[in-house]
Amino acid sequence: MVRQTITLPAIAPGATIGILGSGQLGRMLAMAASSLGLKTHIYAPESGPACDVAAHSTIAAYEDTAALAEFAAAVSVVTYEFENVPADTAAFLSARLPVLPDSTALVTTQDRLVEKDFLNSIGIPTAPYRAVEDGGSLARAVAQIGRPSILKTRRFGYDGKGQALVREGADLASAFRSLGGHPCILEGVVPFVREISVIAARGADGSFAAWDVCENEHDHHILSRTLVPARIANATANEAIALTRRIVDALNYIGVIAVEMFVVEERQIDGSSIEQLVVNEIAPRVHNSGHWTIDGAVTSQFSQHIRAICGWPLGSPRRHGRIEMNNLIGEDANLWRDVLGDGAASLHIYGKHEARPGRKMGHVTRVLPDDNLQ
Amino acid sequence: MVRQTITLPAIAPGATIGILGSGQLGRMLAMAASSLGLKTHIYAPESGPACDVAAHSTIAAYEDTAALAEFAAAVSVVTYEFENVPADTAAFLSARLPVLPDSTALVTTQDRLVEKDFLNSIGIPTAPYRAVEDGGSLARAVAQIGRPSILKTRRFGYDGKGQALVREGADLASAFRSLGGHPCILEGVVPFVREISVIAARGADGSFAAWDVCENEHDHHILSRTLVPARIANATANEAIALTRRIVDALNYIGVIAVEMFVVEERQIDGSSIEQLVVNEIAPRVHNSGHWTIDGAVTSQFSQHIRAICGWPLGSPRRHGRIEMNNLIGEDANLWRDVLGDGAASLHIYGKHEARPGRKMGHVTRVLPDDNLQ
Repeated sequence: MVRQTITLPAIAPGATIGILGSGQLGRMLAMAASSLGLKTHIYAPESGPACDVAAHSTIAAYEDTAALAEFAAAVSVVTYEFENVPADTAAFLSARLPVLPDSTALVTTQDRLVEKDFLNSIGIPTAPYRAVEDGGSLARAVAQIGRPSILKTRRFGYDGKGQALVREGADLASAFRSLGGHPCILEGVVPFVREISVIAARGADGSFAAWDVCENEHDHHILSRTLVPARIANATANEAIALTRRIVDALNYIGVIAVEMFVVEERQIDGSSIEQLVVNEIAPRVHNSGHWTIDGAVTSQFSQHIRAICGWPLGSPRRHGRIEMNNLIGEDANLWRDVLGDGAASLHIYGKHEARPGRKMGHVTRVLPDDNLQ
Repeated sequence: MVRQTITLPAIAPGATIGILGSGQLGRMLAMAASSLGLKTHIYAPESGPACDVAAHSTIAAYEDTAALAEFAAAVSVVTYEFENVPADTAAFLSARLPVLPDSTALVTTQDRLVEKDFLNSIGIPTAPYRAVEDGGSLARAVAQIGRPSILKTRRFGYDGKGQALVREGADLASAFRSLGGHPCILEGVVPFVREISVIAARGADGSFAAWDVCENEHDHHILSRTLVPARIANATANEAIALTRRIVDALNYIGVIAVEMFVVEERQIDGSSIEQLVVNEIAPRVHNSGHWTIDGAVTSQFSQHIRAICGWPLGSPRRHGRIEMNNLIGEDANLWRDVLGDGAASLHIYGKHEARPGRKMGHVTRVLPDDNLQ
């Protein structure tokens, strides 16, 4: 594979970074940029926690080209906290200044079908899948993939939204209708023993740095807990990172990426089992399972992302210890005082106004001694 | 000693912390508060780097009681990044809401004479000193303390400003005039082998947590480098922390404090030497020699200070490794790209507009493996 490099405009401390989105990821990106001497400018349709830590905020629709043009003129580079940046917004900004990760990353990851086609095109295993356009193609897909399988909208799904399980006996037409009749894919259910993610960065010079592999536990499709290192074989961890590198090189990617994978135990003829990896999805951004890097690594995912999009060298992803990260979802955030009482825990609260059920309100990182480090 | 505890108003995430001062310490305090889900409001006579990361800023004089009253009404607690908060400002705010560390800490540390009298009153060794009001009292002080000695203004000195060395043959009248004729103290020169500092915190409940002792190197009176742990005997480190605890308990202190000390090697009759401690000065605030705690400890000094002034439990000061912190002074900040090229270094740039000589522009922390940890 030919590794391309991209020359970015010279960005130095004092410059302003534009961030699309005003949520907690934008907030933590803004704080990391500030630590590096950069100013930040948030652009979002609604004010949010990121605005409280940014030098400037623009509250305007992603379709407001006048506001976008002003924003583009005020910043040196644009990044985002979510992959569903409207294509027209990205195109409008990209015509004026670098938007990173670039449109290839956005186009590839905004659509589950495009993403899986891409992954398979570079030899990376995914669950079996079929495109679903209507009830008829769903029936054909179920005949091929089998049940149970999962029907997912191709676009705009997150935290389990836009998904329907297709069980034995389930009515296919109503499953398709329950997702609004949008274009979907049907995915085979992967019999995984563990879910892991690789958080990694690729620099503008093609350099690559990955944190140790994260093991993730979900509750109602929402990440609840991350452990690092993942309890997998070293060879599996190395393979997970190698797959991630293949992905970012193929995308000529700049920034931090998260690749979620399933670990499947495959029984061998001799009775032993080996771990196989299946890529579930890609997020072209900083990721919840990498939040521990703020407290637990030399370089945080947020700082690394800022380094990458500024064309700066990547920092070390070295861990300070064994990691436990727990999300504070909804009312969990009311436990803040208990968390503070555990002196070894680092509390992060995102500053959201309202603790709605299922809403990510904060997280807690514990960095514990790890005899296998150093 | 009777340990008092203070009951603070309940402060929860979502509340707003007021910070006097818009420099780098205010900036790093604001970012730590944001990580804990708090909003921040900067009050300062001039806009500065802290304003770029705060939800609100008031740019007004410290004597502007209308602006101060509005500020007091908008925040839940007030802290500061510098000890020279005018007494009237502190009194005006304290009448309305908690100002922490409190006026005892301010009164004691704003005046070198009051500070040294306080330290001696609780049995803590300092350099020999005498109050100097005029040329006549300077002559008497020099006769008692000897030469070389150091004439310092009692108030408003920092980074070597407001100091004059009184050498053999120096003209006393001109030395006194060179400091503007302000009230001074004359201090004996301490023949130290090392300079150290203890950064510690005391909570509203009287709890206490100290980071490992810092060893500091200065260049032209400005901190240039901090190493942790300091290269001193364990017993000396324990004594340094014990002295600090005596100071904060005596002041009934709430927040992070920095106590700068000299280490003197005292030759024994048998030819061996032991380390003795002499306290140089106290800063009632977060301190440059504690900046490494952002990257190198479970809880940073900034986060700890916010915990303390909110009446929250203190966090763990455990170190992640052996620490080297180097300040970026003036034009040093132009080396930012070289620093980024050392992947194991964490770069911090403060976002100041102009790199004047002697101005603290940023710092670099390296967290290195430490076999003696864990």
